[in-house]
Amino acid sequence: MATGVTHLFVPGPTNVPDVVRRAMNVPMQDHRAPDFPDLVNGLLADLRTLLRCRTGRVFLYPSSGSGAWEAAITNTLRPGDRVLMSRFGQFSHLWVDMAERLGLDVVCVDVEWGAGVPVDEYERQLAAEPDIKAVFVTHNETATGVTSDVAAVRRAMDAAGSDALLFVDGVSSIASIDFRQDEWGVDLAVTGSQKGLMLPPGLSILGVSDKALAASAVAGMKRCYFSFEDMIATNDLGYFPYTPPVPLLHGLRASLDLLFDEGLDAVFDRHHHLAEGVRRGVAALGLELCATAPEWYSDTVSAIRVPEGVDGVQVCRIAYDRYRTSFGGGLARLAGHVFRIGHLGDLNEVSCLAALAAAEMALADAGADVAFGVGVAAAQEYYCSAHPAAERSVELSYAAPR
Amino acid sequence: MATGVTHLFVPGPTNVPDVVRRAMNVPMQDHRAPDFPDLVNGLLADLRTLLRCRTGRVFLYPSSGSGAWEAAITNTLRPGDRVLMSRFGQFSHLWVDMAERLGLDVVCVDVEWGAGVPVDEYERQLAAEPDIKAVFVTHNETATGVTSDVAAVRRAMDAAGSDALLFVDGVSSIASIDFRQDEWGVDLAVTGSQKGLMLPPGLSILGVSDKALAASAVAGMKRCYFSFEDMIATNDLGYFPYTPPVPLLHGLRASLDLLFDEGLDAVFDRHHHLAEGVRRGVAALGLELCATAPEWYSDTVSAIRVPEGVDGVQVCRIAYDRYRTSFGGGLARLAGHVFRIGHLGDLNEVSCLAALAAAEMALADAGADVAFGVGVAAAQEYYCSAHPAAERSVELSYAAPR
Amino acid sequence: MATGVTHLFVPGPTNVPDVVRRAMNVPMQDHRAPDFPDLVNGLLADLRTLLRCRTGRVFLYPSSGSGAWEAAITNTLRPGDRVLMSRFGQFSHLWVDMAERLGLDVVCVDVEWGAGVPVDEYERQLAAEPDIKAVFVTHNETATGVTSDVAAVRRAMDAAGSDALLFVDGVSSIASIDFRQDEWGVDLAVTGSQKGLMLPPGLSILGVSDKALAASAVAGMKRCYFSFEDMIATNDLGYFPYTPPVPLLHGLRASLDLLFDEGLDAVFDRHHHLAEGVRRGVAALGLELCATAPEWYSDTVSAIRVPEGVDGVQVCRIAYDRYRTSFGGGLARLAGHVFRIGHLGDLNEVSCLAALAAAEMALADAGADVAFGVGVAAAQEYYCSAHPAAERSVELSYAAPR
Amino acid sequence: MATGVTHLFVPGPTNVPDVVRRAMNVPMQDHRAPDFPDLVNGLLADLRTLLRCRTGRVFLYPSSGSGAWEAAITNTLRPGDRVLMSRFGQFSHLWVDMAERLGLDVVCVDVEWGAGVPVDEYERQLAAEPDIKAVFVTHNETATGVTSDVAAVRRAMDAAGSDALLFVDGVSSIASIDFRQDEWGVDLAVTGSQKGLMLPPGLSILGVSDKALAASAVAGMKRCYFSFEDMIATNDLGYFPYTPPVPLLHGLRASLDLLFDEGLDAVFDRHHHLAEGVRRGVAALGLELCATAPEWYSDTVSAIRVPEGVDGVQVCRIAYDRYRTSFGGGLARLAGHVFRIGHLGDLNEVSCLAALAAAEMALADAGADVAFGVGVAAAQEYYCSAHPAAERSVELSYAAPR
Repeated sequence: MATGVTHLFVPGPTNVPDVVRRAMNVPMQDHRAPDFPDLVNGLLADLRTLLRCRTGRVFLYPSSGSGAWEAAITNTLRPGDRVLMSRFGQFSHLWVDMAERLGLDVVCVDVEWGAGVPVDEYERQLAAEPDIKAVFVTHNETATGVTSDVAAVRRAMDAAGSDALLFVDGVSSIASIDFRQDEWGVDLAVTGSQKGLMLPPGLSILGVSDKALAASAVAGMKRCYFSFEDMIATNDLGYFPYTPPVPLLHGLRASLDLLFDEGLDAVFDRHHHLAEGVRRGVAALGLELCATAPEWYSDTVSAIRVPEGVDGVQVCRIAYDRYRTSFGGGLARLAGHVFRIGHLGDLNEVSCLAALAAAEMALADAGADVAFGVGVAAAQEYYCSAHPAAERSVELSYAAPR
Repeated sequence: MATGVTHLFVPGPTNVPDVVRRAMNVPMQDHRAPDFPDLVNGLLADLRTLLRCRTGRVFLYPSSGSGAWEAAITNTLRPGDRVLMSRFGQFSHLWVDMAERLGLDVVCVDVEWGAGVPVDEYERQLAAEPDIKAVFVTHNETATGVTSDVAAVRRAMDAAGSDALLFVDGVSSIASIDFRQDEWGVDLAVTGSQKGLMLPPGLSILGVSDKALAASAVAGMKRCYFSFEDMIATNDLGYFPYTPPVPLLHGLRASLDLLFDEGLDAVFDRHHHLAEGVRRGVAALGLELCATAPEWYSDTVSAIRVPEGVDGVQVCRIAYDRYRTSFGGGLARLAGHVFRIGHLGDLNEVSCLAALAAAEMALADAGADVAFGVGVAAAQEYYCSAHPAAERSVELSYAAPR
Repeated sequence: MATGVTHLFVPGPTNVPDVVRRAMNVPMQDHRAPDFPDLVNGLLADLRTLLRCRTGRVFLYPSSGSGAWEAAITNTLRPGDRVLMSRFGQFSHLWVDMAERLGLDVVCVDVEWGAGVPVDEYERQLAAEPDIKAVFVTHNETATGVTSDVAAVRRAMDAAGSDALLFVDGVSSIASIDFRQDEWGVDLAVTGSQKGLMLPPGLSILGVSDKALAASAVAGMKRCYFSFEDMIATNDLGYFPYTPPVPLLHGLRASLDLLFDEGLDAVFDRHHHLAEGVRRGVAALGLELCATAPEWYSDTVSAIRVPEGVDGVQVCRIAYDRYRTSFGGGLARLAGHVFRIGHLGDLNEVSCLAALAAAEMALADAGADVAFGVGVAAAQEYYCSAHPAAERSVELSYAAPR
Repeated sequence: MATGVTHLFVPGPTNVPDVVRRAMNVPMQDHRAPDFPDLVNGLLADLRTLLRCRTGRVFLYPSSGSGAWEAAITNTLRPGDRVLMSRFGQFSHLWVDMAERLGLDVVCVDVEWGAGVPVDEYERQLAAEPDIKAVFVTHNETATGVTSDVAAVRRAMDAAGSDALLFVDGVSSIASIDFRQDEWGVDLAVTGSQKGLMLPPGLSILGVSDKALAASAVAGMKRCYFSFEDMIATNDLGYFPYTPPVPLLHGLRASLDLLFDEGLDAVFDRHHHLAEGVRRGVAALGLELCATAPEWYSDTVSAIRVPEGVDGVQVCRIAYDRYRTSFGGGLARLAGHVFRIGHLGDLNEVSCLAALAAAEMALADAGADVAFGVGVAAAQEYYCSAHPAAERSVELSYAAPR
């Protein structure tokens, strides 16, 4: 059916709130105007609040999130530097691939797709190899719906006496899942505009600790576009070394205002609440998550294994073509085996019920044995404030340590 | 939850398609510019296609739909004229009220709220009173979700030998439910921008037959703003007698393009398809429609009776406050007794499932004994192309005369 | 040249500020939602501030400004009522025409087009005819660029001992030229959205004094759409009797915020400043205004007489076709004899210089003997803060009573 | 004055046409959806038309134009490669700086700021140093308003028997000034979204010849984000290796449609026409261009020397603060000595007259001895179709080889 909205449940780009769309729809303006720094300075300050970093700096690049991956590496590490990474999904894989192509000497710990960063193995490696210069963490692996424990990695580093830099890919976690740059000692925190920040793609964000800034002054690879140096020189005046993506800056202003008005903790709780409803729906349908244990469950995306004999590609295709609903497909080795529901950004309970309802129909059309309404009902029980069990579980889930 | 879209299921104003929103977001322009008639003439011509009228004229007023009600009356009838009307919901009631306040001598047939225009009674009255100057039909009563049979009224008028003018309120039918001005001999067809045309409110549309135009030349009440005369003189040049609501005209262009690209018959089928799914969901929940029999079922809005002991006002309020979903409330004597799901305009199956899911939760919160997911499942069975029974019923419903 | 913006200098619809365009570009919403009154109540309160009326009521109609003309008349006067009007341009003419068509007994004072309301003649008439029920004033005649003195009319009424209702057409004055409903004893103040309020057309505004409200309770003509009664009943709850033009309400919110942020007095000063520059440019070009004396000069629109042998229609047509600039044409008896520059709403000095530059070229193309740049230069001297004479004149003009 | 539009005359970002703004204002969508390649493939094909390249490839990067500078270098050259560049303004300077930081062995020919690429010197160098791997040309130096002759550089390369790669920075020329990638043998053509393409910043475009593609397969530096390899692999399927800036892609679609509807030659003529008017205005004011001879005059930007004793920074500041007009300032060694009028993109004659009028006032306020209206008048004479001299000069300028 070609009418109505396309129901968008990919884990990025996410739905852009109308107020953010409006904020971006501005006449063009001079990015060297005398009052332009008013916009820029406010954004740079508020992004520190978002990342919970009181020290260091935040950089904004006109690029996708992978640009900030590259900026983090090329500014602070040297070719041949030994680094510790782990791979358990397409995005952690791509970061490893980038690190290798940029000439790093990568110790890559491969982990089952469905689990996350192997903290104990990290600690062991760090203790064994004191010359490891950087430790990489994919906070939320978007391909598998797995969230890793950054704080635990920090503790492992400290336990191992490592003074490596801690790199975190927070593209699909920051602004949706709790993130604490200072507290967790994150040196390079990467995110992008098109996930929890609810903006179109085109802007990447890099939080940089003082330690990483110091590293960039003495280390680094050949670089120019992503160089900290030029960015610092111009940011200090409230400008950029090249023309910034002006509408996205205005959108970022609106997005940060929305997030801070709601309160970051409330934002994280909301993501957990919506995600938990989706997970209950998935479970009620007898389907399994790709994430292998609750400790890995992601509050921003659920990768759902399709039943035997059902093609996950077909599920997504049918959802899109017949039911005007966009799910994420399985990537790389998960192609055909999962479909993904992104439940981050500008959504609410009824949106998530729509996602489950569409998923039920697409699964049925693709040949799965699905009882209509069962997934929806389980989520409704959780979401519905009138239902005693649901209320209780809401309280529990909010009270439980996360 | 304050995030995500508000799910809008009132029977008007309806969801505005994004392409229509974009079309309206234009810089202001001179409504007396030399090329302005290009826009106006195209609209006036295409509205005739929409109304299926090859004769007469179409007028566009900067007003709500009730403005066109008044225009229809004040241009073609005289104070004291005897007219035949029927009342079976808040909107047919308001038209009767207007007619009386404008000085018409109204023969009002009151009908149970839940039924529609009493065709046999109309025929009887017309046969008994040959001096009836006008017959009024509310094609779709938005308050009760009842569609009446305009063609049957025309047949009754012909059978009674009446040469009265036939007035039709098509505000919540035109562009969503089959309407044929010429074929049904409708003399004055009223609609508004904010229903099937998927535009914001602010523009009313009046289709006028040659017979009604002739009447306006000799009859009519004191009028100026809504006068046909000024409109004809300026429309003939491609302009308006006063400043028209320019953005709505651009939106109307986009809306008509959408409707004609889909095809009017496909538009009507789509509305029936979505409505039927909602009705099956309602039935599965054990709820009753206000419409008392299938012949009255409206494909644009379903007024749903709440169970005993449940307050319909609360259902709407909870849906809005907790679940960010707008349903229509019960109006006048139906206040508290029904809630209404508008399923017209820019929607699709998944939207309607979201409506049912939200309704189930709001009903539960309001104290109704609702089994979660049951209404959704019934609609899914109907909508889902993989379900054999559903496919069959789709064929049946499309094959049946409507 | 088909690129670049169309430079819009008609005296309405005026340029819509980008922030207002954005404010109107909203998803559709339920006009009966529980929080809708928050929007409505704020608007109704703030419109009183705009009109400077602390008593009475303000009504918002989905209509063009002429709808509010009709609402003013049909709610407060009776057919046959004797009223005093004056006619000195197309818009005052149209109001007289409406009054006559609605059955009023109009005493119409015809005045040379180029002058305004004849206050002395009004006083004489009022003294002579104590039964005059209403006095009409076109505050700013858009067709001729003439502003009349409402306060003086009030003084004349008081001097004559008249207790007639005072009707004022403020369509092209309110929000641009000083207006004081309470202080001037205006009973019915009409304006529209598409002039000083910088909105698209589609919304009319009517300020109604307590005296006029009292009159409406006992007098009035047959009416329904524009009836005060229904509006009062629903407005008191924060709603409307029919579906209001929702986007325009949001635009009005943004527009009022802009005006109040600037300050109404600053808004009036700005209009005078821009208008005075245009007038100096016109004078420097050796052209005459239609307004016959400075006391009549309008700060919102200048109607400029074209030289002998030049066709004003051509001037406008050339400006539009060749120079992408919209001027207002001459209306009725002024057709071909004037072109009009609207200098109200969202403009600044450089915009006005562009208008003059375009006018110079269009005049030259149409055969006028125009020295390029001369009109622009005169306005620049006035606008340019560096120019001693200009600065002085700015001070003078702001200090002078207006 | 805080009202009205900001008149934007910086040489980028340029004014975004309303139709392009509307095209970008889309709900977010899945960049991996089955129908996404329809958009991508059309853009990639049409960009070849824009660049006039029938061979090779075009890449789109989420980055500013300097990202594509870096992509061109890092994909096709090796560290230590000897390259020939010239420097005559801030942007050619920055490209030299980037080349050096990326490890190239740069032969930099410094030229007076105000002239362009020294073709004869290039030929001499290329003949003397056969190992030069790449030749760089800044087609239009935005800082000085100087256009260089790319075709002549190609002839010089051929004459010297060089098989170096030809790099062209067409950021402020492509889509505004004639550019012919195939005919001129350009191997790497760089542009950005925010100049002649009339889009917001955020997208860079790189046209790559088959020869450069071949070079990239065997040469290149460490790179990942800007790697051709990943882009080719995904573009071939109609996708991108990372999330592309979706709204800009839709805007690019609209922008290319506008340009092709007008016709590229007409677009270039229009830019010349508008530029020539501005230059005549500048000359009439007794001011000099930074470009030292007509052969260097740029049709996209004029850098104008301020008179002795006047501060160019003040001119820009006053224009912005008092007259709501954005001019470009002088960069690097030109700071304070020039101000720049960008006359590229979505403008027309009246816009350019507004720029001149604002410039006259800002110059006067900054202390320059300026006769008001004189610059405007000279441009009007040129633009005005009624003026015989102007018409003649239009013919001349269009007939002259460019």
